[in-house]
Amino acid sequence: MPSAPSLPPSLITLTTDFGTGWHVGAVKGTILRVNPRAVIVDLTHGITPMNVLEGAFALAAAAGEFPEGTIHVAVVDPGVGTARRGLIVETACFRFVAPDNGLLSLAAPGVSVKRAFTIENPQFFASRPSATFHGRDVFAPVAAHLSLGVDPCEMGPPATDLTVLALPEVVQEGNGWQGEILFADRFGNLVTNVRGDLARSPRDAQIWVGDEKIGRLLRTYGEVPPGHALALVGSHGYLEIAVNGGSAREKLGVGPGGKVRMR
Amino acid sequence: MPSAPSLPPSLITLTTDFGTGWHVGAVKGTILRVNPRAVIVDLTHGITPMNVLEGAFALAAAAGEFPEGTIHVAVVDPGVGTARRGLIVETACFRFVAPDNGLLSLAAPGVSVKRAFTIENPQFFASRPSATFHGRDVFAPVAAHLSLGVDPCEMGPPATDLTVLALPEVVQEGNGWQGEILFADRFGNLVTNVRGDLARSPRDAQIWVGDEKIGRLLRTYGEVPPGHALALVGSHGYLEIAVNGGSAREKLGVGPGGKVRMR
Amino acid sequence: MPSAPSLPPSLITLTTDFGTGWHVGAVKGTILRVNPRAVIVDLTHGITPMNVLEGAFALAAAAGEFPEGTIHVAVVDPGVGTARRGLIVETACFRFVAPDNGLLSLAAPGVSVKRAFTIENPQFFASRPSATFHGRDVFAPVAAHLSLGVDPCEMGPPATDLTVLALPEVVQEGNGWQGEILFADRFGNLVTNVRGDLARSPRDAQIWVGDEKIGRLLRTYGEVPPGHALALVGSHGYLEIAVNGGSAREKLGVGPGGKVRMR
Repeated sequence: MPSAPSLPPSLITLTTDFGTGWHVGAVKGTILRVNPRAVIVDLTHGITPMNVLEGAFALAAAAGEFPEGTIHVAVVDPGVGTARRGLIVETACFRFVAPDNGLLSLAAPGVSVKRAFTIENPQFFASRPSATFHGRDVFAPVAAHLSLGVDPCEMGPPATDLTVLALPEVVQEGNGWQGEILFADRFGNLVTNVRGDLARSPRDAQIWVGDEKIGRLLRTYGEVPPGHALALVGSHGYLEIAVNGGSAREKLGVGPGGKVRMR
Repeated sequence: MPSAPSLPPSLITLTTDFGTGWHVGAVKGTILRVNPRAVIVDLTHGITPMNVLEGAFALAAAAGEFPEGTIHVAVVDPGVGTARRGLIVETACFRFVAPDNGLLSLAAPGVSVKRAFTIENPQFFASRPSATFHGRDVFAPVAAHLSLGVDPCEMGPPATDLTVLALPEVVQEGNGWQGEILFADRFGNLVTNVRGDLARSPRDAQIWVGDEKIGRLLRTYGEVPPGHALALVGSHGYLEIAVNGGSAREKLGVGPGGKVRMR
Repeated sequence: MPSAPSLPPSLITLTTDFGTGWHVGAVKGTILRVNPRAVIVDLTHGITPMNVLEGAFALAAAAGEFPEGTIHVAVVDPGVGTARRGLIVETACFRFVAPDNGLLSLAAPGVSVKRAFTIENPQFFASRPSATFHGRDVFAPVAAHLSLGVDPCEMGPPATDLTVLALPEVVQEGNGWQGEILFADRFGNLVTNVRGDLARSPRDAQIWVGDEKIGRLLRTYGEVPPGHALALVGSHGYLEIAVNGGSAREKLGVGPGGKVRMR
């Protein structure tokens, strides 16, 4: 197998709730104006608007697939224009640039953070940053400058006490547990707060959503007939309730806050 | 701050109403077949089909963020297959490639145009251009040839009398004015024909949509509670009516043609 | 006209039914982790979920526009996790990487296939491939290794008897024929099983959908007034029923299985 060529120093991914309009284009233009050789990859722009939780799970599911050195920019930012901090967070493999609202807390959880900085130095912002579009005016140019080799130390002081998403706790119930549906993704899959290691043990226990028995944990959609519900661990590492070829949200009639049990 | 590396000579953006199908892929393939080193960036493909006005505002909002030398291709083209011209328009910083239907008239208004050419030389088209898909067969290869250094003079004769979008006029009313909603974007924001400088003066006057008082011009969504309407100047430079976390179109029940007043 | 620069060796396109979520991002990250210099282009991610037929037509319509040497990855894969093969298929100009479910049978039909291989060698997969996400764990890394120059012989044994999509047959009827609507695309255009050469001959015959007379074969939407239906040959090479500025599916009230006649 031939050896891979050396990594280009300027891979930047984008994770936002901007959807299909021109806002993503404006962010990319801003990055390229600072670093015309940046390689920009869309991680996703399909996060439900303002849903920080869904954004955090998307990062947890996909950010780790990228080459070491990748800069991940994430903007799901209900607090834009308020006093919430902007962050640069370094882990062993990646740098993340995002608002400090928990968006990074699954992909770069506390134990993995090597260094973190508050974004404060306007030298690295757009010349007249708007109050409403920090994706373009703050996070994009900061990431582009990082990709040019600027040290994050120059961007602001070290940051501590990073915001962590408050996932509801999974509750022990006899030999089993009770968890909760956090959100439904665009396919109608129901993502829960139950970590994969918990969901996998014991492997043959039955999983329920409300009063509906889903069955034991499976590995793939095809293990149930089309239209049937199943439980599996998603790429983000959490228990997910899905329907083969359909929408679990619609079929089961439950959404965020719904209960999931193993017993 | 390290100096930015030199600009790659071949940045091409795309702004279309093609949506999520294979048509965008075909356009990119065509560009890359002519110039395999072109760097192609999606500005947006989410323009409402055939809405030239919305396309013009998207270009006005985002084209200026890109590095000098960028080639902006824009295709919202209800007249494809008719006698409407194709254009190459040069401004101080950019080149634009688009049908001559007003799509460029906000991002490259008359005063900014340095040179303009009619696209006529089939040497730079696909070998057998279709009647319905000039995005792929005319605009894409022309842009790709421009990115290779072909002078636009070779593409056709100079163009004058470029089509300008006929925005409805803003009317003076006593000490205030009356403008009009032009379109609703995908978030339900209502974009008007009132330029930012007019909307900003005087700063404390009240803005109304129909009989509904919106309030004075604000800078950011967060200045009103969630679900409330506000007036602000969008990135395209025009007055926009929005709802914090919602759709102004739905909340106010107005759309294109609706009246906006300052008094 | 200046000569084009030499082709970068690593152009990879993606055609999937993944939509706008993070899954596409994960696939791109995986490719870039193997070959950080790969240039990845979205052909489309808007295929209706699980619609292999629609994916095959999208590839047929757009894959040929790309430069020689392009690697086309296509993942519309209802059989993921079952025993269906993964394929590498070489044509004169391209290499395709996809499940063996007919997805390639229009863009790389039997007569055009030079070599084909079954993907079997786990050396080129993700280290622990999931049962449900072969796009990320099998097809993406295989394509990335191909882009680095790995010979497909190393990936698995030669493949024969590739799956071909079973399009319903067009039936001769007197001097005319009867075909069938295969699917509606996202614009509501009705794509049929009638090849363009058949639809074009004789040029002035009338085309009907059910009891509705559409008219003779035209070349462009603009040849009928807005809101009217027309028949034309799409970029994929098959007869398509469309409505100028609208949805043929809605206007005509027919979908997959509906009959199209020339008489």
